[in-house]
Amino acid sequence: MAELVESVQEVRRAIATARAIGKRIGLVPTMGALHDGHVRLIADCRAEAGLVVVSIFVNPTQFGPGEDFERYPRPLDDDLERCEAAGAALVFAPTTATVYPHGSRSTFVEVAGLSDILEGASRPGHFRGVATVVLKLFEIVQPDLAIFGQKDYQQQLLIRRMVEDLHVPVEVHTRPTVREPDGLALSSRNRYLNPQERQAATVLHRALEQASRAVAGGERRGDRVRQILRETLESEQLVRIDYAEVADADTLAPLDDLEAGRRAVALVAARVGTTRLIDNAVLEE
Amino acid sequence: MAELVESVQEVRRAIATARAIGKRIGLVPTMGALHDGHVRLIADCRAEAGLVVVSIFVNPTQFGPGEDFERYPRPLDDDLERCEAAGAALVFAPTTATVYPHGSRSTFVEVAGLSDILEGASRPGHFRGVATVVLKLFEIVQPDLAIFGQKDYQQQLLIRRMVEDLHVPVEVHTRPTVREPDGLALSSRNRYLNPQERQAATVLHRALEQASRAVAGGERRGDRVRQILRETLESEQLVRIDYAEVADADTLAPLDDLEAGRRAVALVAARVGTTRLIDNAVLEE
Repeated sequence: MAELVESVQEVRRAIATARAIGKRIGLVPTMGALHDGHVRLIADCRAEAGLVVVSIFVNPTQFGPGEDFERYPRPLDDDLERCEAAGAALVFAPTTATVYPHGSRSTFVEVAGLSDILEGASRPGHFRGVATVVLKLFEIVQPDLAIFGQKDYQQQLLIRRMVEDLHVPVEVHTRPTVREPDGLALSSRNRYLNPQERQAATVLHRALEQASRAVAGGERRGDRVRQILRETLESEQLVRIDYAEVADADTLAPLDDLEAGRRAVALVAARVGTTRLIDNAVLEE
Repeated sequence: MAELVESVQEVRRAIATARAIGKRIGLVPTMGALHDGHVRLIADCRAEAGLVVVSIFVNPTQFGPGEDFERYPRPLDDDLERCEAAGAALVFAPTTATVYPHGSRSTFVEVAGLSDILEGASRPGHFRGVATVVLKLFEIVQPDLAIFGQKDYQQQLLIRRMVEDLHVPVEVHTRPTVREPDGLALSSRNRYLNPQERQAATVLHRALEQASRAVAGGERRGDRVRQILRETLESEQLVRIDYAEVADADTLAPLDDLEAGRRAVALVAARVGTTRLIDNAVLEE
């Protein structure tokens, strides 16, 4: 089995041993409830690192009031099996008191400019929590590389910016979103969906596909692409749009024109019933 | 001569070489304009580390509007000589663009609870700048230990808190304030004082001595100790008090009663002419 450790001392000891024999250390930060998207991240990490650490920590500071912190799934035994099968040697599952020794309102990290738009506008404080906990995990594990999924597009961008700004010596890798056969992006929150909602939820991916096709076909007007996203999402009665945006893929600034040579990304967030889902697609000209 | 490097790559390369042969790495973060207090920190660091790095960076984000960022002294040649003489092998003097690759308003670190009181109340944003730049320096240099002076009492406390909260693998050491023969704490800003102001400035230390004597003699009332600080400071016409506080030495919470077994610190800030000076004393019962 993958070794399960809870303390900073234990994880550092295990890592020091691996590093002493020349192994590269990879980290896959997660909140547990692992699905095949996480499994892919772990396997990809294993291909690049001699020792893979998976962190499992449902981080309270990235949940807002009324969000699903309490009911967020925590199937630890199942998670451990998946980690093991995917090639992780170490699972770091700290307590909240370990991660936040002086409480959750002490030191925090904020990535100004990327934290208050899109997901950050919908979820105030979310990215402060994300940046803070990811930096802590980087400090604890001191990995050579860390892998994130593209499904959380803004998150991986924000972590890259944080790492560059703070000069954190960690390589950040991003891997493509893993999807169900019908296109739904894998998410730990998909399990909240009832069968009708599950069916309706595919509209996020369909909207992104429509937008991608339009851009591939020559559409350059940002507003027209946003309209395609909205109209497709609105075709499902169970879906309420949170945002549907076309933005610069590096800065997330909204785009009026999709100029040649500038990467654009379409990002959507919507409630399907009571479950909030996100998805995105980089738009290839 | 101590080697002068400007880039992250250069400093990391030099450090990797030293670490590969088993040397401990020590960091003394400074804004330059080095005085004998800094020299003592460097020498103390050299006693504990095989390689001492002194960083010299006048950090714009810790200065407020109207403060002395522009005229802050930058005597680099003199600084290099002092570093060399004190035993530093490496001087890291980065540009602002190196330290802040996405500008000074991108990622920042805040130590909530310790940032907005005392120095932080007088200098809004100061400690955000301090915490952010010190974390960056820790990430760039990855020292085993870093040394700070007690003169900036709140700063060293805040850095300790940040390091604990974020699990940064750096030992933080604090060294006693170095003083002129008449008691004035050494400071790069003392050079701003004219002869009369220089004379008057000794009142900060005298006020702290009076307070220390009162507490050593049995005084336990916080307000009485604050009054002693204020009355002594007010005895100098050239001095305008900014704050004169008696606080818990670990949390900086103001103290009403100096209970046995709880460490207290007296902290003063005052303008002497146009120059703002600070000093402090831990109060021994």
